[in-house]
Amino acid sequence: MKITKKMVDKKSQKRKKRLEVKFSPFDVSVDISSGANLLDVVKKADLPLKATCGGKGTCGDCVVQVVSGKYRTKSSAALPVPLASQGYALACQTEVTDNITVQLPQFREIAIKSIVDSKFFIEKRKEISGIHELNPAAKKIDLHLSSPTLEDNYSDLKRIERQLHEKLPIKKLSCEYSVLKKLAHVVREDKGKISVILFLAEGDTTIIDVVPQSAKKKMYGIACDIGTTTVALHLVNLQNGKIESTSSSLNQQITCGEDIISRINYAQKPERLKKLHELIILTINKLIEKTAKSERISPENIYFGSFSGNTTMLHLLLNLDPQYIRLEPYVPTFNQVSILLSRDLGLKMNPEARILCSPAVGSYVGGDITAGLLVTPMLKDSKKTSLFIDAGTNGELVIGNKDWLVTCACSAGPAFEGSGIKCGMPASEGAIEAIEMREDGALKYKVINGTKPKGVCGSGLVDLLAELFINGYIDRHGKFKMKRAGEKIVDSEEGKGFLIEEGKNSFWGKDLVITENDIKNLIRTKGAVYSACMVLLKNVGVGFDKIDSIYMAGGFGQHLNIDNAIRIGLLPDLDRERFHYVGNSSLLGAYLILLTEKNKEMVDATAEKMTYIELNTEPGYMNEYTGALFLPHTDINLFPSVKKLLNL
Amino acid sequence: MKITKKMVDKKSQKRKKRLEVKFSPFDVSVDISSGANLLDVVKKADLPLKATCGGKGTCGDCVVQVVSGKYRTKSSAALPVPLASQGYALACQTEVTDNITVQLPQFREIAIKSIVDSKFFIEKRKEISGIHELNPAAKKIDLHLSSPTLEDNYSDLKRIERQLHEKLPIKKLSCEYSVLKKLAHVVREDKGKISVILFLAEGDTTIIDVVPQSAKKKMYGIACDIGTTTVALHLVNLQNGKIESTSSSLNQQITCGEDIISRINYAQKPERLKKLHELIILTINKLIEKTAKSERISPENIYFGSFSGNTTMLHLLLNLDPQYIRLEPYVPTFNQVSILLSRDLGLKMNPEARILCSPAVGSYVGGDITAGLLVTPMLKDSKKTSLFIDAGTNGELVIGNKDWLVTCACSAGPAFEGSGIKCGMPASEGAIEAIEMREDGALKYKVINGTKPKGVCGSGLVDLLAELFINGYIDRHGKFKMKRAGEKIVDSEEGKGFLIEEGKNSFWGKDLVITENDIKNLIRTKGAVYSACMVLLKNVGVGFDKIDSIYMAGGFGQHLNIDNAIRIGLLPDLDRERFHYVGNSSLLGAYLILLTEKNKEMVDATAEKMTYIELNTEPGYMNEYTGALFLPHTDINLFPSVKKLLNL
Repeated sequence: MKITKKMVDKKSQKRKKRLEVKFSPFDVSVDISSGANLLDVVKKADLPLKATCGGKGTCGDCVVQVVSGKYRTKSSAALPVPLASQGYALACQTEVTDNITVQLPQFREIAIKSIVDSKFFIEKRKEISGIHELNPAAKKIDLHLSSPTLEDNYSDLKRIERQLHEKLPIKKLSCEYSVLKKLAHVVREDKGKISVILFLAEGDTTIIDVVPQSAKKKMYGIACDIGTTTVALHLVNLQNGKIESTSSSLNQQITCGEDIISRINYAQKPERLKKLHELIILTINKLIEKTAKSERISPENIYFGSFSGNTTMLHLLLNLDPQYIRLEPYVPTFNQVSILLSRDLGLKMNPEARILCSPAVGSYVGGDITAGLLVTPMLKDSKKTSLFIDAGTNGELVIGNKDWLVTCACSAGPAFEGSGIKCGMPASEGAIEAIEMREDGALKYKVINGTKPKGVCGSGLVDLLAELFINGYIDRHGKFKMKRAGEKIVDSEEGKGFLIEEGKNSFWGKDLVITENDIKNLIRTKGAVYSACMVLLKNVGVGFDKIDSIYMAGGFGQHLNIDNAIRIGLLPDLDRERFHYVGNSSLLGAYLILLTEKNKEMVDATAEKMTYIELNTEPGYMNEYTGALFLPHTDINLFPSVKKLLNL
Repeated sequence: MKITKKMVDKKSQKRKKRLEVKFSPFDVSVDISSGANLLDVVKKADLPLKATCGGKGTCGDCVVQVVSGKYRTKSSAALPVPLASQGYALACQTEVTDNITVQLPQFREIAIKSIVDSKFFIEKRKEISGIHELNPAAKKIDLHLSSPTLEDNYSDLKRIERQLHEKLPIKKLSCEYSVLKKLAHVVREDKGKISVILFLAEGDTTIIDVVPQSAKKKMYGIACDIGTTTVALHLVNLQNGKIESTSSSLNQQITCGEDIISRINYAQKPERLKKLHELIILTINKLIEKTAKSERISPENIYFGSFSGNTTMLHLLLNLDPQYIRLEPYVPTFNQVSILLSRDLGLKMNPEARILCSPAVGSYVGGDITAGLLVTPMLKDSKKTSLFIDAGTNGELVIGNKDWLVTCACSAGPAFEGSGIKCGMPASEGAIEAIEMREDGALKYKVINGTKPKGVCGSGLVDLLAELFINGYIDRHGKFKMKRAGEKIVDSEEGKGFLIEEGKNSFWGKDLVITENDIKNLIRTKGAVYSACMVLLKNVGVGFDKIDSIYMAGGFGQHLNIDNAIRIGLLPDLDRERFHYVGNSSLLGAYLILLTEKNKEMVDATAEKMTYIELNTEPGYMNEYTGALFLPHTDINLFPSVKKLLNL
């Protein structure tokens, strides 16, 4: 058959140039044909990106940053020219003409780093590692076995066991099968000089590795907090308790849904549950690789993992179907789980590494909370009563002390995390994190990393709401007082709103406004948290005055202005010095569990005895909630300092 | 290019017909070209087959039986015509012209079946299962979980644990990861009605499976004795303790060496160790499949395996390098090992099935012996002192009672197993198993399965030796008394020997003779066993008169004529009623361990406290051995009944 020119052309057309689009910081890439529309590519990659106008190039929602590679894009009124020159582009207006790497702006990693790298967190860590004993469940013991003789020809295993019993008070000793398989060779490699890695738990001792002493084995552990949004990890030297390295990243599951409920919904099909499981393992493995590489150690030397996270995250870590967590009566598969093996989960550690998960109290009070309590005096002090608040999309609250603890969870909504608020955003680069109003009504604000403002994060929103309220721009229902606010109220795409910053000064070139609807969402959120506090207190018959300390955990509270949080009725009106920010207490708690078995026992016993109040069935909750939908509250007498400020 | 006729011919020559030769009862097959020499094929398959004459067709050693398929063979004087018509052929004279299945005569399975199917064994089993309590470590517990409510929404795991604690006295409870993964679905499948499979050991309880009650789960265990030659297995209903099915086969490792030492030598390279491990797993899996199929159960329902075997066999089961067992000072990797998982070994059972191995005392007193002791009263009775003898290629001896036990091992050699004796053979079809001499010197014998005799097995050899000695055909050194024996002594290929049967009456058409050299080998073997007994007794300062019972285990003793064994000095000269044959006590012991955890605890404690005497370093052993190289012994006074018979 003769091959004609025409046929070659057709073939080359069929073989349209194949290109690859990578999405940072995920492990997601898509193969496409040259010329593909970038918004379609994002959809193909199954990644979340809003496009309110449906791809007409008018809303500006689908803005992305191309960090490497060439592309062709149309200019749009919705994207300021200076941004276009920095690689920003509207996905719907962009054609891919090269292998490119794209960053979706909502997934910038800075949001996460701010917690684990903050000065506060580093100080807290130092404080903690100083006061706690070091007695990790994973131990390295050096032995020197004498050479066997005809008079003393016990088995290799027996000779090791004999020496271990001399060195340690061991009740029950067993040996991993994988260790048996190499035992004969290892004990003979360095003339009987061996290092034995043990794991001790609940009275049982297991030999999980044996290496010749000449290998100069070091032993590490990881503490890991699996957040719905971010995963943070400490690499810990188990021989001195030191945190060698810290690392964090987005939870790659975020590509399958941003919050817990959407993840659970996503997991309904077995293959999707598997995908979520694989994504969290991938996220963790990348963090392990990164920290191990930075410290120049082999992941084989990591023998112990302590994991904390909410109940759903720990279910997904274990590849367990989380759907009954979402369905009434909210039953998880487990709250407390036996020791797991790294090889069963596919973690990049020593295959025999032992994995502990912080215990949950129920579907909505998870291991992140119980681990977090370890960071406070609440599990050790019987005299003082404290309140622990971890407020995110779900708010979890714990009240009590060493002798009793009561907990509940409320669905606060994602408003303080920047979701559901037009100008809201996470606490990443470009977010307004603090706001003050001058006497003339002009706003002074601070932007993370000092760029032009892109939006307002949680702490900024609290400040904004407080300033608007205290300065009389909104009433106690959160409605604009038009007389006073009049000239500050502008029309925006979302309706009339208070102007935070004009478009010419903002990053995206659009006015930053807050609408009455946004304010309503914020009031609902603060109301949910406060009313949960009230139910908890009433339930145990304790007034706010009896609370010695309030510990605020998680991203919430890091840059929070406590005065403003009280002014809007988010936090109770107590002496300011009673409030303490404990940061990523879930990660710190996981770290403490790594340091000594006692902490695991303490947190397990605590989770077991904690009383859980289900707000859905608590008769007084709706009343409390309704009362809290005001600024600061229907009952102004609950907020005496605010009452005084308002001259009521 | 034009294709010519000639080229086609060449091609077809190149594509010489490919054939497959299968070897029964192994899982071995070889691909060969049509026309291959069968002896070469056997060598290619790495199977043992003697060929003394080097393939000339004169010695007749390489006889095989082709059980299916066509072949071309030359007639040979070394192979009687009637045999040729039954498919027997000399491998060296045979050309393969078809897909064939070949049986190597030494691997006929009947040898094995004779033990576990014997009337004695079945009686013994009945006796044992009647007297022992049933309290297996693997248990099925039916639970009915109430539906969770908002007031009682504990986790699925917790609700199971709560009910288990109500039903059983549980100290420590944990749950297998694989169970967690299916828990949410299983507890909801039959409205909370579930069957929980537990494994209890050393105070720990583990949930190893959960199924809906509607699945009507049955629970089985297997008891398995791994012999160097044969593997035997009981499938046991764990809910009533009944043996549902029994099966045995050759240990497929036999293709890599017939005895322990040759297996250890074979295992020196890692890939060969792996092969031996895989072969034993294959052997066991085929037996499991067979028994499971015969009882119509799924291997998934087998949750517990109890394995016994000598130290080397258990090392190979676990894929552990056995080489230090062979090298002085004879150090195994383990004597006692923690619970193993079926999935780690690749056994065809429930992946979470628990595997227990009977404990060894040392490299040459293994788990087959300790398990065997369970079948005797030696672990329970303090009053009587007993002697336990398991004599094969290696002889193991134990003396003592509940309060003390001393053991040793001797290398007896394979003479009584039919190896190293020209007319010797295993106790399979065609073996002379019992011999009597008439007054005129003519031999009366009994052949297994009533065929023409192929050779003499162990019990027949003992009889023969005793008759030759008692009737004055050989002297106390084992030399022929030519005056008396003269006319019975014939010349054979191996030198002059006593004629047992003429060629015209034997299966292979050759004279069956026993030579002085054969007799020397037999005397060495019996001497090794007897002198080991003597050392053991002297070591504990007990005379034979203080021995209440002698338990004989293994193939040894099944058809043994005790009088004759005493006459040649193999067994001590005690009242005949003190001798008891306990058969495959290793298998029975493994079965007893399956029935109740107490037995495992008892056998572990026993192995731990047993005193092991290393004969190699025992000063008196060589003297004892030298003294025992006579018929019945240098010191005839040790054998008063023999002395009387000889009128000395």
